[in-house]
Amino acid sequence: MTPNRGGTPAASSEDQLLARIRRALSVPQGNSASLRLAIGDDAAVFRPRSGYETILTCDWFLEGSHFLREQHPPDSVGWKCLARAASDLAAMGAEPRCFLVSLAIPAAATGVWLDGFLRGLRAASLKLSCPAAGGDTTRHDQILINTTVVGECRRGQAILRDGARPGDAIFVSGPLGEAELGLRLIRNHQRRLSRHDARLRKHLYPQPRLRVGTWLAQQRLATAMMDLSDGLSSDLPRLCAASGVGARIEARRIPIPRLSGPESKKYDAFQLALYGGDDYELLFTVAAENISRIPRRVAGSPLILIGRVVHETNILLIAESRQEIPLLRKGWDPFRN
Amino acid sequence: MTPNRGGTPAASSEDQLLARIRRALSVPQGNSASLRLAIGDDAAVFRPRSGYETILTCDWFLEGSHFLREQHPPDSVGWKCLARAASDLAAMGAEPRCFLVSLAIPAAATGVWLDGFLRGLRAASLKLSCPAAGGDTTRHDQILINTTVVGECRRGQAILRDGARPGDAIFVSGPLGEAELGLRLIRNHQRRLSRHDARLRKHLYPQPRLRVGTWLAQQRLATAMMDLSDGLSSDLPRLCAASGVGARIEARRIPIPRLSGPESKKYDAFQLALYGGDDYELLFTVAAENISRIPRRVAGSPLILIGRVVHETNILLIAESRQEIPLLRKGWDPFRN
Repeated sequence: MTPNRGGTPAASSEDQLLARIRRALSVPQGNSASLRLAIGDDAAVFRPRSGYETILTCDWFLEGSHFLREQHPPDSVGWKCLARAASDLAAMGAEPRCFLVSLAIPAAATGVWLDGFLRGLRAASLKLSCPAAGGDTTRHDQILINTTVVGECRRGQAILRDGARPGDAIFVSGPLGEAELGLRLIRNHQRRLSRHDARLRKHLYPQPRLRVGTWLAQQRLATAMMDLSDGLSSDLPRLCAASGVGARIEARRIPIPRLSGPESKKYDAFQLALYGGDDYELLFTVAAENISRIPRRVAGSPLILIGRVVHETNILLIAESRQEIPLLRKGWDPFRN
Repeated sequence: MTPNRGGTPAASSEDQLLARIRRALSVPQGNSASLRLAIGDDAAVFRPRSGYETILTCDWFLEGSHFLREQHPPDSVGWKCLARAASDLAAMGAEPRCFLVSLAIPAAATGVWLDGFLRGLRAASLKLSCPAAGGDTTRHDQILINTTVVGECRRGQAILRDGARPGDAIFVSGPLGEAELGLRLIRNHQRRLSRHDARLRKHLYPQPRLRVGTWLAQQRLATAMMDLSDGLSSDLPRLCAASGVGARIEARRIPIPRLSGPESKKYDAFQLALYGGDDYELLFTVAAENISRIPRRVAGSPLILIGRVVHETNILLIAESRQEIPLLRKGWDPFRN
């Protein structure tokens, strides 16, 4: 076995690695009632609830693209690889039921790094009531993660992207741009910041808005919904394109991050909010006659009206001066040149 | 857009890439009755059958580890990334229902390579009656694939690894070592072999033994089952460990590959069969009193008795001389030193 700085030694076989992952992610039976069989066989066995549909999503989380091994604490990588996939379920109004994690990892990272990763993944699994059902492991020179999350929602209640209609109000479930600020702080700081630094919380440990999503689905209040993973300027056009509509967003209503003294000189809060990714807030639309039924908060999340759906299929930002500016897509797109 | 040798130009945005994948993988409605919503929203919506359990599996397929971009035809990569994941469902006795594919790809491979990949993936999807439900795409300098397959089997009928009992007969569903032979031919040939070369078929286009698996589940004839992905010498110990038993394998009964003149000088058919991976045949056990109920073939696959489950937890190979030799684990393990 390869020696390692303290903690668990590196794994020397795939079966040994699997046994460690299984131990780290095992949860009390009560939390996994719908899982008949989890990690350890060829596949997982999940017992669906009668009257529900199964919601399925998968998500890359790759060293170099989505996180940096030296700069992101391993428990944040574990937390986030599950939280961001679960956010896709929140965006459908579904509840998570179980997940599968595929992990490709260098042998040198199967000691201390893996311990931290599994600690964060377990914390997210417990917090989201989403037990591990299985996965796949292999060796690779970079850490590669793919997470599949399985959820459920009542038959016919899933909220899609294509139901927004002209006149609907557009809402978001919280401040935008805080995750991007955290990412920039990590990138720009020479010294590693504490993982407990409050400014990094949303970047390192995002909270999928599951209770907002299920509340909207149960109340049948959202006409369309998605989660904000690539930034408002990239994701709003996707929702609009799926619905065949456009949008008018009011600049003064956009919930921008609060910046402290030195940060306010360096960063533009408005740019962070429009173009920053990784917030995992929900973006949803509500028919005009139902706006009054939207409370200020659901499960601690503020529900903030930022604009209206319109018939014309472009997206305009209305400045405080009432000037209308086309909203350019500047969020993260790995294939854009 | 990046120019490319003929065919489709490279993708210039993630949305454009997604649209191409969606077009390539779309199937007639009849094939996807249980899928309410496929690629294009935050998550897929799958309607489970009443009285069935959902079976979930995911599988890495990575450039450099599992395939070589220059030597493996792209349609084989597309076929195999789905076929090998579906083999995990065969190993449970389940039928596939839908899949999600996560693809990380260099921009330069989003033209001709991607076309071939999608052609192979679509062919497997149609052949296995397993429509695409969703996925995730991003850019990466190597091609990374992770496939999640969702299947179903009647409640309580899934065949696990842990039910083998002393006295049970051990079967495999076809010849072993042919896939390893194909891999060695590709590795050892200077010139690229034709993808139609019959010796490469099992390596390039493996067939998951889904009909054998579901037949065994329906007949309730297998006490334990798994698929052979890492080779008999690695996988049989896993089934035995899960069941708390050992095995006696008869060398003369192992279905070895037929080698032609020059190959028989270069390769040892017996070594290929014991230690070669990627066959995706089923390995299963049957109670002694049911052996007579196992036909010679199911859905074209020969069902071959190779040995017995025993109480002692070691695994011995019985040579033609009746000498007993411990079976060493020499199949592929990415973490073994």
